[in-house]
Amino acid sequence: MSKSLDFLTEALRRLPGVGPKSAQRMAFHLLQHDREGAAMLSRALYQAVDAVHHCAMCNTFSETEVCDLCADEQRDRTLLCIVETPADQMMIEQTLTYKGLYFVLMGRLSPLDGIGPKDLHLEKLISRAADGDVKEVVLATNFTNEGEATAHYISEMLKARGLKVSRLARGVPVGGELEYVDAGTIARAMLDRRSA
Amino acid sequence: MSKSLDFLTEALRRLPGVGPKSAQRMAFHLLQHDREGAAMLSRALYQAVDAVHHCAMCNTFSETEVCDLCADEQRDRTLLCIVETPADQMMIEQTLTYKGLYFVLMGRLSPLDGIGPKDLHLEKLISRAADGDVKEVVLATNFTNEGEATAHYISEMLKARGLKVSRLARGVPVGGELEYVDAGTIARAMLDRRSA
Ligand SMILES: [Zn+2]
Ligand SMILES: [Zn+2]
Repeated sequence: MSKSLDFLTEALRRLPGVGPKSAQRMAFHLLQHDREGAAMLSRALYQAVDAVHHCAMCNTFSETEVCDLCADEQRDRTLLCIVETPADQMMIEQTLTYKGLYFVLMGRLSPLDGIGPKDLHLEKLISRAADGDVKEVVLATNFTNEGEATAHYISEMLKARGLKVSRLARGVPVGGELEYVDAGTIARAMLDRRSA
Repeated sequence: MSKSLDFLTEALRRLPGVGPKSAQRMAFHLLQHDREGAAMLSRALYQAVDAVHHCAMCNTFSETEVCDLCADEQRDRTLLCIVETPADQMMIEQTLTYKGLYFVLMGRLSPLDGIGPKDLHLEKLISRAADGDVKEVVLATNFTNEGEATAHYISEMLKARGLKVSRLARGVPVGGELEYVDAGTIARAMLDRRSA
C-alpha cells in the first residue's frame, strides 16, 4: 500500500503485546486521526533513547548519573530496598512508609527465560550494598515464584557478606505482583517486614 | 522518575487501546530490552507522518498523489467499490474477484460518535463517482448497523445522480454451518435467495 505505512506497522509490532492486527489499527489511527500524536511519540522515543540511562547507584532509569532519589540527602542511607522494576519502586514510594534508598534489579532471576545472576548485574548490587553505610537490605521482589527465588538468592549472597537482610511481610498476597497491589497492603507489609 | 520517560509513557497512551499500565510497560520494555526497536519506531513514525498522504482518486493512504492501484491501467475504470478502510480494501483484493477501482471512506457514518456526512468528505466521493467513466458503484461497507446506514446514505446520494449502485450480497458465509450462523444472517439469506 505504502512503504512508509508498512514500515510503521512493522515497527509498532516491536511494542510488547502488539500483534499484526493491532499494529495496523494503530498505524491507521495515527495517520487518519492523530498525526500530532504520532509526531509526539516519534520525538518522545528519540528523546528517551538519547537521554535515559541507568542511575549509577540504584540502577533505575535516570537522565542524570545519580537519580534524584539517590541524591536526596534526606533519605536514610542505612536502608536499601531491592525491587524488580521502577514501577515497583514507585508503588513503595506511594505508601510513604519507607525513607531509605533503593536498588532496582530491572528484572528477576528466571531460569526458564535464561535470566541468571549475571544477567541481573548482581555484582553492581553487591558493591552497592557493601558501601559501609547500608545496615539493612529490605527484599521487596514480587511474591511470585521467580520473585521469591530472586529474594532467596540475593539474601544468601548478602548474608554471606555479613549484611542484615529482611523481606517484606506476607501481607502481599502470594502470587501477587507489587505493581497491581493496593498501597495499603504494601504499607502494611513494609511495616511488618521480617528478617530474611 | 525521569522527564523523558514520563513524556514517552504519555505519548504511548496516544495509541488506541493503550492505557496507563500498558504504556508504562511498553516504555520500560523499550528502554530496558529494545532500544533499537524504539529508535526504529521513532524513525518510522516521523517518516510516515511526513510521507503518507491520501490518494487524490481513491482517498486511501498513499505516498504518491495517485496510488499504485488507481494508476494501474489494467483495472476496470467502469467499476468503483466503496469500502470503509484500507484493511477492508486489502481483504477484497485478496479475493481476486474484483478488478475495478476503489474509494476508501476512511471511516463510516456514526451519529453517536459525531461522524456525519461532512466528516467523511463525501463530496470527494461524489465528484469521483461522477467522472463519466464509472458505470457502477459497489457498496462494500461492513454489514454492521453503521456500515449499513453508511451504504444506504451513499446509495441514495449516488442514485439521485443517476448512477447504478449495488451492494455486496448478504448471506451465510462460505463454509458456514447453518447451526452456527446467527438467525438474522439466515433470515437475510432466505430473503435474498437466488435461483439455483
Ligand atoms: Zn538512583
Ligand atoms: Zn488511489
